[in-house]
Amino acid sequence: MQNFFQVISVQEFIHKLKEFSPVDTEELPLDQAFGRVLAQDIVARENLPLVHRSCMDGYALMARDTFGASESNPAYLEVIGEVHIEKIPDFALEPGQCARIVTGGTLPERADSVIMVEHTQDLGAGTIEIRKSVAPHENVMLKGEDFRVHDLALSSGIFINFKQVGILAALGVANVQVYQRVKVGIISTGDELVPVHKVPAPGQVRDVNSYTLAELVNKAGGKFKLYGIVQDKLGAITAALETALQENDVVLISGGSSIGIRDLTVQSLESIQGVEILAHGVAISPGKPTILARKENKAIWGLPGQVASAQIVMLVLVLPFLTHLAGKKNSFDEKDKVFVQAELARNIASKYGREDYVRVRLEDSGGKLKAIPIMGKSGLLKTIVQADGLLKIPDNLEGLEKGTEVKVWKV
Amino acid sequence: MQNFFQVISVQEFIHKLKEFSPVDTEELPLDQAFGRVLAQDIVARENLPLVHRSCMDGYALMARDTFGASESNPAYLEVIGEVHIEKIPDFALEPGQCARIVTGGTLPERADSVIMVEHTQDLGAGTIEIRKSVAPHENVMLKGEDFRVHDLALSSGIFINFKQVGILAALGVANVQVYQRVKVGIISTGDELVPVHKVPAPGQVRDVNSYTLAELVNKAGGKFKLYGIVQDKLGAITAALETALQENDVVLISGGSSIGIRDLTVQSLESIQGVEILAHGVAISPGKPTILARKENKAIWGLPGQVASAQIVMLVLVLPFLTHLAGKKNSFDEKDKVFVQAELARNIASKYGREDYVRVRLEDSGGKLKAIPIMGKSGLLKTIVQADGLLKIPDNLEGLEKGTEVKVWKV
Repeated sequence: MQNFFQVISVQEFIHKLKEFSPVDTEELPLDQAFGRVLAQDIVARENLPLVHRSCMDGYALMARDTFGASESNPAYLEVIGEVHIEKIPDFALEPGQCARIVTGGTLPERADSVIMVEHTQDLGAGTIEIRKSVAPHENVMLKGEDFRVHDLALSSGIFINFKQVGILAALGVANVQVYQRVKVGIISTGDELVPVHKVPAPGQVRDVNSYTLAELVNKAGGKFKLYGIVQDKLGAITAALETALQENDVVLISGGSSIGIRDLTVQSLESIQGVEILAHGVAISPGKPTILARKENKAIWGLPGQVASAQIVMLVLVLPFLTHLAGKKNSFDEKDKVFVQAELARNIASKYGREDYVRVRLEDSGGKLKAIPIMGKSGLLKTIVQADGLLKIPDNLEGLEKGTEVKVWKV
Repeated sequence: MQNFFQVISVQEFIHKLKEFSPVDTEELPLDQAFGRVLAQDIVARENLPLVHRSCMDGYALMARDTFGASESNPAYLEVIGEVHIEKIPDFALEPGQCARIVTGGTLPERADSVIMVEHTQDLGAGTIEIRKSVAPHENVMLKGEDFRVHDLALSSGIFINFKQVGILAALGVANVQVYQRVKVGIISTGDELVPVHKVPAPGQVRDVNSYTLAELVNKAGGKFKLYGIVQDKLGAITAALETALQENDVVLISGGSSIGIRDLTVQSLESIQGVEILAHGVAISPGKPTILARKENKAIWGLPGQVASAQIVMLVLVLPFLTHLAGKKNSFDEKDKVFVQAELARNIASKYGREDYVRVRLEDSGGKLKAIPIMGKSGLLKTIVQADGLLKIPDNLEGLEKGTEVKVWKV
């Protein structure tokens, strides 16, 4: 089959990515589910709190007994008991009565509020002075105020971080259904490549992509496996792809920045049964020669060999895709990205119809952030470390002018 | 020994934290060192690139042969060979000559620049037309342009992420010296607590802190171990602390929001040989009753029992401390935190001399972000999930007025 280099827009590309389904789910103990994506809706099986609980150390009372009380006109209440934290009080209040209570303690029957100990004075002989009026429900977490029984507490498709963990623990979700970690196989091609531990001869370079791609996969929560360097030969590439496809949900093959090798990757994908090529080029720079293919629900990405270009494709397209496979809803939204506002320090030209990503440094210039495009040659690694973030020039612009207010994506 | 509740400022508290030393180091294969802190300076052992390499597919040539060339006035050069990527060319150029070259290819002797294939026309019979003049070094990564042999490429004390990984791989650092993961033991106290898998009786609540603290430790790169719920008894707390201290670099014990239990933690720390109490209260809200102690280079933190308060202390103090122990330089700087600019939607009162942290929601109001303080009761978990970030009110202010431009810390 003849392949034409058909470049599609980023939007079309993402549309194809969204057609992949999330990976399978598994049940894990809560303390092993951190950072995973929730694969079940969490419905409260009981009220949270179970009972009316005090938010403060003080006295549980009936609010109306304190109405009008102040420093100059205190009220006086009879202390009829003390509430320990772990026990339900076995007494009820009558008007004019109160009970000592600790933070977290359960309110005695008919108590509707708590006064902080700071606003009272113990007069001894079972009487306290109340120097402030309290409102009903003041300093009390009401039964079911967090969640009522049958409330939907958390929806599937969100990351489990400390905030969600708190709710899961409080609701007794000791084991939780989550999406599995996405397994990603990483292959490098290029006859000029040598493994990291080897000293390259002139004309050779070490395999950098295997490691930088792996680090990005790892940070995105995926589980990477390195398949090392494969020779630029159809048979070798096909064999490596087949093995990696069997063992992973996603395969990243980088290299082939020159047209001949890119064709090899495409040819080898075409030779594997069931593989369909979805895109052969995307309107993004750097990263245009990216290849996307699928076999059933498994994705194969052909990434540029150049380190800086491969990283842009990873950040802009592959990582949101891995998050999508990991079950997260709305993974392609910009909402979760971190942006900082800055003023562009220089004109940047761009090509209409193409999304450009420019590495920028951020510099504080009199309290105002400046975004300074890093102009180094595209093959240098130094420029990657110098960058504080990326500036996107949308496909409907032909560049950005110096002085424009821009949003820099911190990566 | 009598303990007075001596509250110190956040600044003094951080000063004490900085006196702890980073944990030990270990050597790891590069693909296991992701997210760790580099514990060695990385000096280039060779030039990177090793030779002059082309950044483009095109023709290697001598720039002066193209001076003045343009669409209307092209230059003509003789093609004397082709540079394959992995081999050093065995020929040199003479004036008027060029050689076909691929991206990454090594320049032949006397070539000083590369013209992109797009700006040439192959006329056949070994001649190409040059339609643009190129500058010396154009489209060439010069030998040593990234790093020269003996250059300091990376300094110790920084996180290893994809940017650093690229340089480590390119320089052949197959095994790298990094700081170990910080081991953190987590203990919960409180007679009202039951384990997550149990159904609480009225008056009881599930142990939430163990899990939310663990998630935060995990995200910060630490290695947590849960010691479960310990009874509010001196002997039980002391035994748990001693075991956890033996097995970890840091121990977090939460609970004891009431004064009696806080005293128990302090008493039990005082009963362990070699333990020194460094702080007993910090001028922060919530989180004031935080305890800090040390035994040799191990730290013990007494955290509030209330989930929302314990989280604030974790985010503001414990996590930067764990990063500091993990070897990262300048861990207490605000530089690595993510802030967004917003307009405060409501007055907030605060106490002079105390750092206040207020949970806020961010709302887009006509293209402008509003920070809306979340006013829920302090014991609720729902308010934690609703928050987009924290707003710090510095200790030298008595509050912030509605309409103030504020920096919201996204957590």
